[in-house]
Amino acid sequence: MQVAKELFDPEKSGAILKGMRVELITTGSELLLGQVLNAHPGYLSTRLAKMGLELARQTAVPDGRGAIREVLGEVWGRGGVVILTGGLGPTSDDLTREVVAEFLGKPLEEHPEIEKKILGYFAKRGLVAPDSVKVQSQVPKGMEVIPNDAGTAPGLLWEEKGKMLVVLPGPPRELAPMFEKYVEPRLRAYSRPAEWMRVVRVTGIGESAVQERCEEELRRLGFTAVGYCARPGEVDVRLRGADEKLLEAGVRRVREILGAAVYGDGAETMEEVVVRLAKRAGVKLATAESCTGGLVASRLTDVPGASEVFLGGWVTYSNEAKMRDLGVAGESLAKYGAVSGAVAGEMAAGARVRAGADWAVSVTGIAGPGGGNENKSVGLVYLGIAGPKGVETIEKKLVPERKVFKAMASQVALDLLRNKLLPQLLPKSEV
Amino acid sequence: MQVAKELFDPEKSGAILKGMRVELITTGSELLLGQVLNAHPGYLSTRLAKMGLELARQTAVPDGRGAIREVLGEVWGRGGVVILTGGLGPTSDDLTREVVAEFLGKPLEEHPEIEKKILGYFAKRGLVAPDSVKVQSQVPKGMEVIPNDAGTAPGLLWEEKGKMLVVLPGPPRELAPMFEKYVEPRLRAYSRPAEWMRVVRVTGIGESAVQERCEEELRRLGFTAVGYCARPGEVDVRLRGADEKLLEAGVRRVREILGAAVYGDGAETMEEVVVRLAKRAGVKLATAESCTGGLVASRLTDVPGASEVFLGGWVTYSNEAKMRDLGVAGESLAKYGAVSGAVAGEMAAGARVRAGADWAVSVTGIAGPGGGNENKSVGLVYLGIAGPKGVETIEKKLVPERKVFKAMASQVALDLLRNKLLPQLLPKSEV
Repeated sequence: MQVAKELFDPEKSGAILKGMRVELITTGSELLLGQVLNAHPGYLSTRLAKMGLELARQTAVPDGRGAIREVLGEVWGRGGVVILTGGLGPTSDDLTREVVAEFLGKPLEEHPEIEKKILGYFAKRGLVAPDSVKVQSQVPKGMEVIPNDAGTAPGLLWEEKGKMLVVLPGPPRELAPMFEKYVEPRLRAYSRPAEWMRVVRVTGIGESAVQERCEEELRRLGFTAVGYCARPGEVDVRLRGADEKLLEAGVRRVREILGAAVYGDGAETMEEVVVRLAKRAGVKLATAESCTGGLVASRLTDVPGASEVFLGGWVTYSNEAKMRDLGVAGESLAKYGAVSGAVAGEMAAGARVRAGADWAVSVTGIAGPGGGNENKSVGLVYLGIAGPKGVETIEKKLVPERKVFKAMASQVALDLLRNKLLPQLLPKSEV
Repeated sequence: MQVAKELFDPEKSGAILKGMRVELITTGSELLLGQVLNAHPGYLSTRLAKMGLELARQTAVPDGRGAIREVLGEVWGRGGVVILTGGLGPTSDDLTREVVAEFLGKPLEEHPEIEKKILGYFAKRGLVAPDSVKVQSQVPKGMEVIPNDAGTAPGLLWEEKGKMLVVLPGPPRELAPMFEKYVEPRLRAYSRPAEWMRVVRVTGIGESAVQERCEEELRRLGFTAVGYCARPGEVDVRLRGADEKLLEAGVRRVREILGAAVYGDGAETMEEVVVRLAKRAGVKLATAESCTGGLVASRLTDVPGASEVFLGGWVTYSNEAKMRDLGVAGESLAKYGAVSGAVAGEMAAGARVRAGADWAVSVTGIAGPGGGNENKSVGLVYLGIAGPKGVETIEKKLVPERKVFKAMASQVALDLLRNKLLPQLLPKSEV
């Protein structure tokens, strides 16, 4: 892109910032009014971690000159790299460009090349640009422009005496490519060795049990601090250290202690692990879901290339659907109920045969808030796994909160698949 | 719960804080290392907004005495209510209890009643409590204890001269019930009238177009600031004002201007709207998904009571599944390809008939990153909607980024259902 090269040189180095502190300011009233989940801290810290950089702090403030000006002053005063997101759009509550210009004492100037690019962006889509979007072509005098290849609002960059201010638009699909293509090369000069943190991902064991079983061993190896993080259906063990060998030994030790409960030791999600194992084993998968309502299938299909191993699935919410689509016996439903091991087993077996899959997993349970009774309470779930050698079922009692329940149940389902696909467990012909 | 009543009186009033500022501090290295999405700001600000309270700022800091102490000092110095989350667990990186005790100058004391409750929590689940969990029964002298009915770590509360410090555990499923049951009654004394903000939710129109069509009219009505927030597949218009009549007039005006593109004006999500409309119309729904991989069904089943209207769905990722389960013609797949209006229409029609539903929606497209070609690029999607009067299909070009694409496509699918279920469009017999 022509404009990009002229206005922004990603190879330009910034020398003075070695070992720098990085802070993130996210602006936008929606982040503080309960409208929107703030995805920037997660995304940016993941990208920074890959460079050995770490967010020292993240602050969210509402749209508003005063609020943005105040926090920018505080954070800029602490030095290092400041990433400021949001408020570069065309609407009247987008104030970041003006506040930054004022804060740095730089007048806003029209930038005809950017205006041309913005008008072109609309024209290419057969749309007429509303007048309001033209404000996005204003640049505080002397700031570098970070091209926006996925939208209209360009980013801004300023560097002085060991400090860097990076201003990026709020929409994640615009921010992400800008950060990766233009900002990361500028930050890379100050990054630590790539190996300085490893996360071991564990499922099926609680947080305090994980610590009790691992921490002493890890301290003996030489780790001075170990971090833990529990989420629905999983616990992360976070190992940090400058020494690659130590990190490797730590990961190995946790794997030895916790065995198959460890499902990964990198950035890979459970669904990515399952898709990767299935590809390697050359097997096809199918799903049969009741209470998870399609979440297991949706997680599998979040993984690029899932279509190579995932044939499809059924969301059989009604009893009729379970019988008609999966061949569940009416007697089983009458005798044991839809939430039962018998029905889970028949669902998995039916899905496997009908889809022509090697492995099928099923879930049937009570997500709540309704549907429970004295015998079967909200949170109860049965899962089935059908493979070449037959069907197994398990019973679990999960958290009786609908969305947490769905997340946990989908995790158990994916973990059933993972365990069956672990290479040492597969018959030789399938590996 | 006995302990609760003795230690914490939710009716106790705090008088001095009227019109107070609320700030949130979330602790936890995982929030800054890219491991975890921070859900607390969204949840807490939603709850606060219902009381007319607003988060003035949210700050995330890593686990670490220095970092927590520093930010607590800054925020406590600004006054008002401070909510501090995370770091109350049993593992070695849980430091918040100690930092708060030190900061307020209160020694930690063992609290036998809490210890008894924690041991009981494990016993009830047939587990032996690891020694490490007992640290959670320590309380800084004189602080009130907020009972944790869903876990082991109690919360803490301190009130002095117009300031309040609320300390809550990190896991959302523990924090949420504690906040709603014990903290909200304490905050309610300082809340503004319930009606001070309305959010109008719009789908199918871009952010700048929404502003261009609405803002002048809203200013004319008397609104001094209007907020906008764009997410995949939707735009929020945020109206604020102390006057209920003005808010009502604003919502009505936006609805008049944007028509059916407005899908709601409260906290209701698109899937909640669809389930509510389907219940009112007494109709049954089904889904047939390819590229969204079950996300449409999963969103519908996120809604409590979805089982009353949602019969089930198919995730037909392979061509075979489309033919076998939905009756898509092999000729259509050969002639038009799986990503085509013809196939979308046949998928919807097949799902409707096979599920015995009144309405069925289908989605087939290219989520990427692979699968595109010169004729059909990543982001292309066809949707079908089948109802009593036949089948309609539409073509859309969405963002070629897998997860954003899935989110947008599922939104379009749900919106197709919504439009068909709007009461004025239903035949009288179905309303």
